[in-house]
Amino acid sequence: MTVNAPQGFRAAGVAAGIKTSGALDLALVVNDGPLDRAAGLFTANKVKAAPVLWSQQVLTTGRLRAVVLNSGGANACTGPEGFQDTHATAEHAAARLGLGAVDVAVCSTGLIGGRLPMDRVLAGVDAAFDGLAATEEAGLAAATAVMTTDTVPKQTLRTATGWSVGGFAKGAGMCAPNMATMLAMLTTDAVVEDVDAALRAAVAVTFNRLDIDGGTSTNDTVLLLCSGASGVTAEAEEFTAELTAACADLVAQLQADAEGVTKHVAITVRGAATDAEAEVAARVVARDSLCKTAFFGSDPNWGRIAMAVGNAPVAFDAAALDITLNGVPVCRAGTPGEDRTAADLSGRDIAVEIHLHAGEGSATVLTTDLSHGYVEENSAYST
Amino acid sequence: MTVNAPQGFRAAGVAAGIKTSGALDLALVVNDGPLDRAAGLFTANKVKAAPVLWSQQVLTTGRLRAVVLNSGGANACTGPEGFQDTHATAEHAAARLGLGAVDVAVCSTGLIGGRLPMDRVLAGVDAAFDGLAATEEAGLAAATAVMTTDTVPKQTLRTATGWSVGGFAKGAGMCAPNMATMLAMLTTDAVVEDVDAALRAAVAVTFNRLDIDGGTSTNDTVLLLCSGASGVTAEAEEFTAELTAACADLVAQLQADAEGVTKHVAITVRGAATDAEAEVAARVVARDSLCKTAFFGSDPNWGRIAMAVGNAPVAFDAAALDITLNGVPVCRAGTPGEDRTAADLSGRDIAVEIHLHAGEGSATVLTTDLSHGYVEENSAYST
Repeated sequence: MTVNAPQGFRAAGVAAGIKTSGALDLALVVNDGPLDRAAGLFTANKVKAAPVLWSQQVLTTGRLRAVVLNSGGANACTGPEGFQDTHATAEHAAARLGLGAVDVAVCSTGLIGGRLPMDRVLAGVDAAFDGLAATEEAGLAAATAVMTTDTVPKQTLRTATGWSVGGFAKGAGMCAPNMATMLAMLTTDAVVEDVDAALRAAVAVTFNRLDIDGGTSTNDTVLLLCSGASGVTAEAEEFTAELTAACADLVAQLQADAEGVTKHVAITVRGAATDAEAEVAARVVARDSLCKTAFFGSDPNWGRIAMAVGNAPVAFDAAALDITLNGVPVCRAGTPGEDRTAADLSGRDIAVEIHLHAGEGSATVLTTDLSHGYVEENSAYST
Repeated sequence: MTVNAPQGFRAAGVAAGIKTSGALDLALVVNDGPLDRAAGLFTANKVKAAPVLWSQQVLTTGRLRAVVLNSGGANACTGPEGFQDTHATAEHAAARLGLGAVDVAVCSTGLIGGRLPMDRVLAGVDAAFDGLAATEEAGLAAATAVMTTDTVPKQTLRTATGWSVGGFAKGAGMCAPNMATMLAMLTTDAVVEDVDAALRAAVAVTFNRLDIDGGTSTNDTVLLLCSGASGVTAEAEEFTAELTAACADLVAQLQADAEGVTKHVAITVRGAATDAEAEVAARVVARDSLCKTAFFGSDPNWGRIAMAVGNAPVAFDAAALDITLNGVPVCRAGTPGEDRTAADLSGRDIAVEIHLHAGEGSATVLTTDLSHGYVEENSAYST
């Protein structure tokens, strides 16, 4: 049920002591081949962590043999020294695996602005190397070692005829568009021709449609490793569909475990001029604090949704705006529809549908409410 | 100390019964001249309330004699019927004052998506007309009648040689850029040539630099009425300076009374390519939920500020980024500066200074923290 379920992959997760709590904090995922195709997508943030800069660089080859992932520190805003730390990590793992540093990507997550305890990181890489296995326990340990404020590990497995796609992800806050949640790791034993195209297509409609708080982190990374160990060639279309399903499964788990979440909210915008405008409009609503606090309060206050979508930089006529909450058309043609109290938002799931009547574009963005739990969790983190 | 302190103005505030609480909810401000120059700035939201559409239309003349303001209902998303309600309100006030409807602007604030109880509104206009006065009590009643979740009325008065600028404002949430807070009303008895230019200049650096939660409302309006009753001509530069000071005074009161506020935060960005880019970058930080919850927790977690500014659509090199918190340089050249714990954020005021080293542009945006109080207040509003 995880990243090492597809043939050709081993994984490990260890407690390296990067986290003072003693929890698992370092993972290693190895692709034993025969293929070593790989693709990655990274944060759009201008402030990129050292491991992002490193992994982007090594991935220009389109090949990877291993990935080292750590929680307990983001290694962001750490300058040239932080980049050296990432390089040393890759080099150390590569030496143990009989590879070159360029074959090893690195991912980090945790507090921004601090160096990693490199003695512990390198010793952790040794311990992880010793623990590498294709077992379910080893995969779960790897998925657990990347957790920060996550309360549960997030894993996925999709099985097709003769091959499969596995993966794990982490992320609960600082979750937003233009690259994933913080970290996601996907593997497949299918023989896939263009892993990059498949990953881009899958991420565009899954990770990039999750927006918890608009905070695209400095470390967001999604990696896909392809071992081809099944010997079965997957058609591009079928592979992309399975990969997309695996990503969607992880995204649903990320949404469900978001910081302080009490509501799972899907914002769908239809009738936009283009799909891109629909996504922009949905994202503006997904990020609006007044809408999100209303969701928390189970309050069908659709006026706030009208306000938020009116602030989106997209074309529409306010006199044509329709808003439906959990199936109840509360706003029709820019005016009150059925009584707002008919929309029952007391359950966990809230479906917001907005029709702009300006074209054929549509998109759905997933988000959560803004709760006391979110404030509590995020007002006491670094200190 | 208010809107009717300058010569030539009378005001009133009454309980018209629009609010079920019986609180003051309707205000009337009248300019008795001799001049009737006026300027207004309105929300940039595409979903504009009926009173905004009306007031924009009547202000194309550059003249106003009176303004009716109500709380208890925004008259937004109410369609042609809502516009008729606004028109009827202006017409009714105009008839009592011996004016044309085109001489009367209307401002509304409250829940979006409901019609106003017009019998009460019109009876309230009658009561307000009967109560019009130049007294401090009448001005205070008017400033009080526009309050929604505000906890205190907000008034200002600037006195120059022979003339003055007065005003009031309301707004506590749904407060953001591109037009003011929800409602602000300014008056002067100076003889001012170009009231529009003065208002635009003043609002650009005051109301438009306050960003509590990114929610530009459907009703945001700032009006300036000029009676010229002092007979003293004010130089453009001096008048703009006094008007700006009056606006800044009201903005400080809005920030201090923002929903759930525990921190007054000033985000200053220097070294941007342009002033406009500096403002955009400051605004992205001001709206970031992770930064705002850190402020609430008095947490000098500057990594979140680096993350937020890295998401701003402005040009800079992450390796040059400086961040200073309450005078302590916690991030220098994109790497850790002095220990973060040296930055004491436990007091009410937090000054965030960000240097991008990409040019000469600078701007300051005022905001607040994201607290339990904000969530509490906004998760239980309409129902």
